[in-house]
Amino acid sequence: MDCDPGHDDAISILLAGRSPHIDLQAITVVAGNQTLEKTAKNALNICSAVGITDVPIAAGMANPMVREQVIADDIHGETGLDGPRFDKPSIQLDNRHGVDLIIEVLMKSDGDITLVPTGPLTNIAMAIRKEPRIVPKIERIVLMGGAYQLGNVTPAAEFNIYADPEAAHVVFSCGRPIVMMGLDLTRQALATPEVIKKMKPIGNKASKLFVELMEFFTKTQREVFGWSSPPVHDPTTIAWLIDPSVIQTKPMYVEVDIRSDKSYGRTLCDYFNISGKQANTEVALKLDFDKFWNIVYETLKLYS
Amino acid sequence: MDCDPGHDDAISILLAGRSPHIDLQAITVVAGNQTLEKTAKNALNICSAVGITDVPIAAGMANPMVREQVIADDIHGETGLDGPRFDKPSIQLDNRHGVDLIIEVLMKSDGDITLVPTGPLTNIAMAIRKEPRIVPKIERIVLMGGAYQLGNVTPAAEFNIYADPEAAHVVFSCGRPIVMMGLDLTRQALATPEVIKKMKPIGNKASKLFVELMEFFTKTQREVFGWSSPPVHDPTTIAWLIDPSVIQTKPMYVEVDIRSDKSYGRTLCDYFNISGKQANTEVALKLDFDKFWNIVYETLKLYS
Amino acid sequence: MDCDPGHDDAISILLAGRSPHIDLQAITVVAGNQTLEKTAKNALNICSAVGITDVPIAAGMANPMVREQVIADDIHGETGLDGPRFDKPSIQLDNRHGVDLIIEVLMKSDGDITLVPTGPLTNIAMAIRKEPRIVPKIERIVLMGGAYQLGNVTPAAEFNIYADPEAAHVVFSCGRPIVMMGLDLTRQALATPEVIKKMKPIGNKASKLFVELMEFFTKTQREVFGWSSPPVHDPTTIAWLIDPSVIQTKPMYVEVDIRSDKSYGRTLCDYFNISGKQANTEVALKLDFDKFWNIVYETLKLYS
Amino acid sequence: MDCDPGHDDAISILLAGRSPHIDLQAITVVAGNQTLEKTAKNALNICSAVGITDVPIAAGMANPMVREQVIADDIHGETGLDGPRFDKPSIQLDNRHGVDLIIEVLMKSDGDITLVPTGPLTNIAMAIRKEPRIVPKIERIVLMGGAYQLGNVTPAAEFNIYADPEAAHVVFSCGRPIVMMGLDLTRQALATPEVIKKMKPIGNKASKLFVELMEFFTKTQREVFGWSSPPVHDPTTIAWLIDPSVIQTKPMYVEVDIRSDKSYGRTLCDYFNISGKQANTEVALKLDFDKFWNIVYETLKLYS
Repeated sequence: MDCDPGHDDAISILLAGRSPHIDLQAITVVAGNQTLEKTAKNALNICSAVGITDVPIAAGMANPMVREQVIADDIHGETGLDGPRFDKPSIQLDNRHGVDLIIEVLMKSDGDITLVPTGPLTNIAMAIRKEPRIVPKIERIVLMGGAYQLGNVTPAAEFNIYADPEAAHVVFSCGRPIVMMGLDLTRQALATPEVIKKMKPIGNKASKLFVELMEFFTKTQREVFGWSSPPVHDPTTIAWLIDPSVIQTKPMYVEVDIRSDKSYGRTLCDYFNISGKQANTEVALKLDFDKFWNIVYETLKLYS
Repeated sequence: MDCDPGHDDAISILLAGRSPHIDLQAITVVAGNQTLEKTAKNALNICSAVGITDVPIAAGMANPMVREQVIADDIHGETGLDGPRFDKPSIQLDNRHGVDLIIEVLMKSDGDITLVPTGPLTNIAMAIRKEPRIVPKIERIVLMGGAYQLGNVTPAAEFNIYADPEAAHVVFSCGRPIVMMGLDLTRQALATPEVIKKMKPIGNKASKLFVELMEFFTKTQREVFGWSSPPVHDPTTIAWLIDPSVIQTKPMYVEVDIRSDKSYGRTLCDYFNISGKQANTEVALKLDFDKFWNIVYETLKLYS
Repeated sequence: MDCDPGHDDAISILLAGRSPHIDLQAITVVAGNQTLEKTAKNALNICSAVGITDVPIAAGMANPMVREQVIADDIHGETGLDGPRFDKPSIQLDNRHGVDLIIEVLMKSDGDITLVPTGPLTNIAMAIRKEPRIVPKIERIVLMGGAYQLGNVTPAAEFNIYADPEAAHVVFSCGRPIVMMGLDLTRQALATPEVIKKMKPIGNKASKLFVELMEFFTKTQREVFGWSSPPVHDPTTIAWLIDPSVIQTKPMYVEVDIRSDKSYGRTLCDYFNISGKQANTEVALKLDFDKFWNIVYETLKLYS
Repeated sequence: MDCDPGHDDAISILLAGRSPHIDLQAITVVAGNQTLEKTAKNALNICSAVGITDVPIAAGMANPMVREQVIADDIHGETGLDGPRFDKPSIQLDNRHGVDLIIEVLMKSDGDITLVPTGPLTNIAMAIRKEPRIVPKIERIVLMGGAYQLGNVTPAAEFNIYADPEAAHVVFSCGRPIVMMGLDLTRQALATPEVIKKMKPIGNKASKLFVELMEFFTKTQREVFGWSSPPVHDPTTIAWLIDPSVIQTKPMYVEVDIRSDKSYGRTLCDYFNISGKQANTEVALKLDFDKFWNIVYETLKLYS
């Protein structure tokens, strides 16, 4: 996992950290929803709070590859994870650089590693460029980012891609299979009041964290976008890994606009295959809402 | 009306030429679906075939303002209006340049003229630039073009805008009220077999022309885009003028990407008003399918 | 001639209006150094002041084709021709639009017309696009604009091209022979104190106007660019028509950057023919300083 | 030193490896004139041939940060250093990644390290982004790249910048002092037949290598650009470090065009300070030809 927690990243971590379908090798952190210092601290806080203590957590890139930094403090607050209070974490950051940890894990692997980036793609792209031999070792990249319809940070672009379009370009053109959970899909993953109400009675630390995060997230998503319930973008990636039938996808050729001013960071998804180019991405179209939240529910229940 | 007939432009002309709600002042023709020579000939053929003989028809721009020409012969065929056969037209082109005719009509008006462009925006933009005093004389521009979701000629862009993005930029930034019938809307205006079957029994020249056009259009739209029924883009403009309740719109700030390679010609529609900019366009969202085709039906019936 | 007077345009008009080598057919005016209203008035003032009364002068485009307007009031002052005082002009603007006058003159010609644009290329490009049949009627375009080295309004771009890059793109890609007097050349055409001193004793209206214009121009060019003497850009075009040996040129393929933000309006001159493309432009390299100012001197002397 | 040898890089290494004014800490290699495999091998060959054996040499980036790779095999031949024959090198590559070696050297330093990149800026930019804390440790960056006048690989761009414009953007915007030896300067550093004749009698390994390299380089520069003698770009950097009086510079604000198609990789140098922005670069203007070649001569003589 490569993430920038972030309220919805936090839910991803909760899923990946306990699901019996996932063998979590490492968590790398990137600047995105907030600065690296804050997202790294948030990753430690989340894992410490729910007892994910055996996975290395490394801080990676503090800045985008090329562009100047943008963060999403309007959505995720001053800390990047406003809402819950955390005790001092019982774990520490791994002393390797996140980019080098990604390279190490892949180089040691047998080519069966899935990368799950849910923040800007800076760590992944830097690793690909620094050590090109990792590329054939990547089995698949399941990412949250982009949109084939409407953006959220500009009319054209989604935040994770917009925060580092050049990195996204490196990833989308790397030649490995990609599954893209774009806004078109994640806007269906709403944490409605019914969803929040369903998780509450689980009653463990994970469900408590879920509820606190979603209550804050409901508020900012309503203020900024007018959503009545917040879209919980990132966990769709892990949910798909647990059960791919939860999301309907369509193969498309996807590339990122890195040369435009107004469309900077748009994921151009060739839905109708107008270009005739070979698809490089399974783009998510439709979420099975009930099945998705059931996966979350069942996984949260596994926490003590 | 400013058009590039074109199968769907033809239906627009049929509506505008006979509806009691429309006082058609002039038809100007532009290169687009085919070259100017062909689109101008098609306009004469359509009007002559159904008896629209009292409206000046002038040929305008043969080329886009800046970019090299693209046409849509894959969709509209070699003539730009493949399908029906026409007798030699009984009318001739006005000897004014289309751009000058637009300027003349507007300068003589009291500011109550609605422009209805259903092709590339070259004629309108050239008129605006050649004679800026026409701008305050334009009551409203109701155009077919653009998309806030998926393009049709590239993943980013719709044909009319892509065929002359610089002209579209001039129009969208001119300061007058715009209603945009983009692909998001017009893909709902499908000429299904039921629709075609409904029009056939009217039995006049206009309905016969409608049926012949739609039978050809069904074939190419299926071949190029995989649509089972063809979207009939252009007449949504006239239908809205006849009865605005047929289409639900939302005010947005819209601008055109004229500086990108990959997103060239995208209409960037600020659906969520992320930019905070004042809306310049009513963007069409949703069509009342039955009401729309009923308007077409009732208007075609008015022909002898 | 197509111009936006402007101090150096004024000198061009003085040369073209009296040289026995030039048969001046029309003067069209464009917005550029100042707004159209002012540049048109300046053209009338200059011609009236020195007795050029038999040439139609028509106002053309008030705005660039696509971009928003920029003017050069820092260099040419509030009127666009600050310095001299003019009596009320004895002549009036032709009532044709400048674009239409260019079209008319060319369509009536035998293909032996040279266009001499010394402002933004808006009028020329609009004429080419509005009536493509004029293109083969253009014998040659001798223009002031661009640079293959350093720009003056941005590091990349020269003012005339920057003021309407899209129009420049239309002109440079029109297929007719072009001679480009860029800043590389015109920065050699300095109106030094010696030059001004040489013109003074001619003692007619033209020399008086020359001196007054250059005294003002010396001041602003020093303030804005730090030149000790002002480069007199525009008359190099007419001087070349009078005697091509005054300027050394080199054939190059030239195109205009219309898609960049930072290099917007740069004339990309393929000096080394890296692209292998056929040259479309004779780019001016080197001025014979003495011969140039002698041409100016001899022509100014012809005024009464 | 960070380089991509390359004929002219080789001369830089010869200067830096023996000059008493230079304390060479490390050589990092980057893909550029040829692929990384070849440029790394060339670095070993050069150092081994002349006895530079106590400096770590590490291979860095094999690909540009974002764009697809371009190399300059037309100029430097199949090996990247065609011409001389080398014995099997007596030294080996350091096993650190070039990017990490740059970071290490800087982090251990007291802030008195000068970076001298003479290839694409990929290694430097990756180091800056991977470990932002190195930035204040960089005393100065003296680079070969760019042009304020004419490019060499496109009309707009010089090879080193064009080969990785995004990396160049990172470097030029990093906030540390930069000295830029662009083509404007390096085209003055011609290895004329007289220069080659002057070096020959030195008679040591370094002079022999110099002569062999320049004989090959003379041939390709003549074939590709029509130069009668080859410009020896890279050693101007080391020459300036040895004696800054050899090159006249001017402070300018420089930025790189990374968003244009046609001007991609141009170094926009604000020679006239039109923007009013604070200079970030000393741009080289003029070379003292005799002094420059004398520095080379005196340094080559120091080899045994």
